Amino acid sequence: MQLGLIGLGKMGGNMRERIRRAGHTVIGYDRNPEVSDVKSLAELVEKLDAPRHVWVMVPAGTATQTVVDELGDLLSPGDTVIDGGNSRWTDDEKHAAALGIKGIGFVDAGVSGGVWGLQNGYALMVGGDKQHVEPLKPVFDALKPEGPYGYVHAGRVGAGHFSKMVHNGIEYAMMQAYAEGWELLEKVHSVENVREVFRSWQEGTVIRSWLLDLAVNALDEDEHLEKLRGYAEDSGEGRWTVEAAIDNAVPLPAITASLFARFASRQDDSPQMKMIAALRNQFGGHAVEKKD
Amino acid sequence: MQLGLIGLGKMGGNMRERIRRAGHTVIGYDRNPEVSDVKSLAELVEKLDAPRHVWVMVPAGTATQTVVDELGDLLSPGDTVIDGGNSRWTDDEKHAAALGIKGIGFVDAGVSGGVWGLQNGYALMVGGDKQHVEPLKPVFDALKPEGPYGYVHAGRVGAGHFSKMVHNGIEYAMMQAYAEGWELLEKVHSVENVREVFRSWQEGTVIRSWLLDLAVNALDEDEHLEKLRGYAEDSGEGRWTVEAAIDNAVPLPAITASLFARFASRQDDSPQMKMIAALRNQFGGHAVEKKD
Amino acid sequence: MQLGLIGLGKMGGNMRERIRRAGHTVIGYDRNPEVSDVKSLAELVEKLDAPRHVWVMVPAGTATQTVVDELGDLLSPGDTVIDGGNSRWTDDEKHAAALGIKGIGFVDAGVSGGVWGLQNGYALMVGGDKQHVEPLKPVFDALKPEGPYGYVHAGRVGAGHFSKMVHNGIEYAMMQAYAEGWELLEKVHSVENVREVFRSWQEGTVIRSWLLDLAVNALDEDEHLEKLRGYAEDSGEGRWTVEAAIDNAVPLPAITASLFARFASRQDDSPQMKMIAALRNQFGGHAVEKKD
Amino acid sequence: MQLGLIGLGKMGGNMRERIRRAGHTVIGYDRNPEVSDVKSLAELVEKLDAPRHVWVMVPAGTATQTVVDELGDLLSPGDTVIDGGNSRWTDDEKHAAALGIKGIGFVDAGVSGGVWGLQNGYALMVGGDKQHVEPLKPVFDALKPEGPYGYVHAGRVGAGHFSKMVHNGIEYAMMQAYAEGWELLEKVHSVENVREVFRSWQEGTVIRSWLLDLAVNALDEDEHLEKLRGYAEDSGEGRWTVEAAIDNAVPLPAITASLFARFASRQDDSPQMKMIAALRNQFGGHAVEKKD
Repeated sequence: MQLGLIGLGKMGGNMRERIRRAGHTVIGYDRNPEVSDVKSLAELVEKLDAPRHVWVMVPAGTATQTVVDELGDLLSPGDTVIDGGNSRWTDDEKHAAALGIKGIGFVDAGVSGGVWGLQNGYALMVGGDKQHVEPLKPVFDALKPEGPYGYVHAGRVGAGHFSKMVHNGIEYAMMQAYAEGWELLEKVHSVENVREVFRSWQEGTVIRSWLLDLAVNALDEDEHLEKLRGYAEDSGEGRWTVEAAIDNAVPLPAITASLFARFASRQDDSPQMKMIAALRNQFGGHAVEKKD
Repeated sequence: MQLGLIGLGKMGGNMRERIRRAGHTVIGYDRNPEVSDVKSLAELVEKLDAPRHVWVMVPAGTATQTVVDELGDLLSPGDTVIDGGNSRWTDDEKHAAALGIKGIGFVDAGVSGGVWGLQNGYALMVGGDKQHVEPLKPVFDALKPEGPYGYVHAGRVGAGHFSKMVHNGIEYAMMQAYAEGWELLEKVHSVENVREVFRSWQEGTVIRSWLLDLAVNALDEDEHLEKLRGYAEDSGEGRWTVEAAIDNAVPLPAITASLFARFASRQDDSPQMKMIAALRNQFGGHAVEKKD
Repeated sequence: MQLGLIGLGKMGGNMRERIRRAGHTVIGYDRNPEVSDVKSLAELVEKLDAPRHVWVMVPAGTATQTVVDELGDLLSPGDTVIDGGNSRWTDDEKHAAALGIKGIGFVDAGVSGGVWGLQNGYALMVGGDKQHVEPLKPVFDALKPEGPYGYVHAGRVGAGHFSKMVHNGIEYAMMQAYAEGWELLEKVHSVENVREVFRSWQEGTVIRSWLLDLAVNALDEDEHLEKLRGYAEDSGEGRWTVEAAIDNAVPLPAITASLFARFASRQDDSPQMKMIAALRNQFGGHAVEKKD
Repeated sequence: MQLGLIGLGKMGGNMRERIRRAGHTVIGYDRNPEVSDVKSLAELVEKLDAPRHVWVMVPAGTATQTVVDELGDLLSPGDTVIDGGNSRWTDDEKHAAALGIKGIGFVDAGVSGGVWGLQNGYALMVGGDKQHVEPLKPVFDALKPEGPYGYVHAGRVGAGHFSKMVHNGIEYAMMQAYAEGWELLEKVHSVENVREVFRSWQEGTVIRSWLLDLAVNALDEDEHLEKLRGYAEDSGEGRWTVEAAIDNAVPLPAITASLFARFASRQDDSPQMKMIAALRNQFGGHAVEKKD
């Protein structure tokens, strides 16, 4: 089948390649003319046969909103827009409503796979009406991993990004779990081969996983991670997961602790711990550490 | 090689079977005569050729202490005792010292594998002196999974149980991660197929793991887990992990949150939340829920 | 001075009384004619001399929005609206902008005091431009406690509700602190007089506070809180505090833990702990508790 | 009455002064001859009339153990030892048993008050048998604050130190509550006078407390705490509180979060966050921050 693909960065470029390898036609557009197949969104739309399917793979927020708005003007009733970026699920309903008025379908797709996706396939979590999702099946089949899993039609519009968001929230806490365990093992003297302990866990244990395999890779490159700083960004999806939990009165202690650990990792000095130090000094005369 | 094996319950019985399948001789002892190969510890020791290797697989604490003490009386210099139970690592040094005075070696082995171990092998984390660990290699090879991983000589006496303990701590937080994500997905209406979302994650995602496979198994048996109560025991190793972290001033927010969630799950009513309700009533006149 | 006061419930009614006791004129409006001084908002506005000051004390969200919109139509340039309800600080800027176009000032006031306010005074945290805040000083003086504290002009529009929101977040964690300590003391047998321990803390300790006094009151009414259920609502401000922290990448582990404890207290059974139970059963054959 | 007092440091010296002011006889011993009233423990014991009361105020652990052992040899049946240091409650039962064999009584006293105690009095939480506690009442009355509170006979031996330990656990979470709120207020631009917000909270609010007063003192000395590092020690009692909670399966999320925040504050770089950074790099190609 034919697919328009907007955004040919690290993710989008590899996805174009993987879909083409499956025998489909992809017309890609990117602001960078060196990687773009066409000169404009208008040209991209022109080159596709109706009903058109256009996959948006640009940064969440303003960039996605702009492209969706432009596609709303360029496309025709019966066409479908797929948002495969990291959009917040709450944006999906707005996009679906705005496009729906014009008779254009909307599908949201959460995509996992990172730098490994071209080779191993991308896990896809999809939201939208059946009538809009089903015609896209060949594209989803091209992108997904070869095995029986890695694709789900999760529910209504928004369900794809919501599921991907929760996936990332779970990911935060799993990473935190290994990280906490690693720090504790590194701290204790009786355990002399922490890296080999991690390596051994890759079979037969309850905690074997792909993330564990990656941890072993990282330790093979730098056994005690001495070259790194303990500094971790967060991509937005962890924050949205906690916000969704608060909206729904669902307690998420481990996922939230993992998010907060990242926040703290980015502080040169902790304001709240200054207050703790100040209070200890006030009531107990405990020494404080002064800034140099 | 020959091995004495004390404790033939769910774990020990299967381990005897797996070691025998590998061609070794196992003489097992259990208080239950129906499963025991010998009538007493003394008879077990008698039937083994020196230097003897005796694997203890009984409940941690008093039961293990008793057996180790008895073996200290029955065994001879050059023999080795292996504690494969869920002992706290702090017990290992005591056992090693007490046996060491008599010239008897001591090795601690953390064993993971549960009900799947007989078929798939047991992951082994071992602590002790090289001279005591190396002669046991054939037994470890018999027990471990077939692949390249699943066995590690982690370090000195205690390092095996310490590593296994941290493994379980990590396991607590990973389980909590999936559980929190599952609850949030179940709560949100746009996601109509939570079980299928979990199933799809088994390939191509960052969070694929054996625990995820088990979660899918559980959801296949009972899609919304309606037959279960939200009640979870803890086995001691999660508690010890947090205690070891406190001893070493290592923050473990996600693992500890997971342990506390289990504590709370076992309370019919939460005393601390009664106090919260009482305080809200005191300052704000907020309604409280009275006991029936 | 003259003040219009809209909303004469538990809080508003007492505030009218306290302002009148200070010698000011209050014209109150409530949908309930039994407590209202006038029959309509229009009549309230008519009875006030320009420049008018109208204090809104109705539930946050739709109710406040509706009243602010109506006042925007009824009031004149130079008048001022004060929102003293529990509005989210993000609403304040919207209200200020909408009223500002019409030349009407806007002030947000976070009010603490609960059922004790009539007698002891209300703590006030105020946000807005100096020109709108200063003329209201007589009303603030009437409402605040007698001592030197209890009133602050915290900053720009929104700063009042933001400060009150953070106050409530702190309150959540302080209540949780006492509640956790109380549960632990109640659980341990050596401590035979937990209520008397709490009572004794009211002097000389680091943790003496008004909340502690209230805890002692509650324990005097019901020593072991046996008449209460461990069930606690949350009023929105705790949630907003965590959301504001996430927006600003500030870690709030204790406040968030306190919020989540309330969420959990309201669940008959915990879905996430069902998943933990299911996973333990899957890998370890651990018994689960079935629903009756 | 007469009291022997061992340990005349910051706390002990002030306590001697306060008891003497109340008209009692205190014979103090300290290793530092400049502050000591006698040259040895033996001389101290000799100078007291039977039945003797000897208050131990030395560091918890080895120092306290040593003094208790020596007193066991020096004292006579009918005498009483009081441990007023920060001992772990589990030590109390051992001391009571060892002294009890010799007919010597034992009382444990948790003491709160810090640098303010000499002036304001010390809050006292006492454990022990009524026959040992009651004769000490005049000393307790001398030490405690003047008001009706500040002293409790909490229960059996150990109950005093256990109550004081929980007091400190509560203190950790209360300090954390204010610290989190302060950081959030400092981060948000609309709030222009954070110090004044804190000051205003000292009356009329739900969160007024002595700790809040101290926070205002600290902000008056250094409005944004710019002279301090965000570095906080912990004294042992927070750790013991969490360990006691684990022993008793009581969830303490806020207190534990506060303890972990202190652990993290003392790390130059976080090992666990290095692992998070490494994993993000492995699966997503996310940039890491290298050490300089």
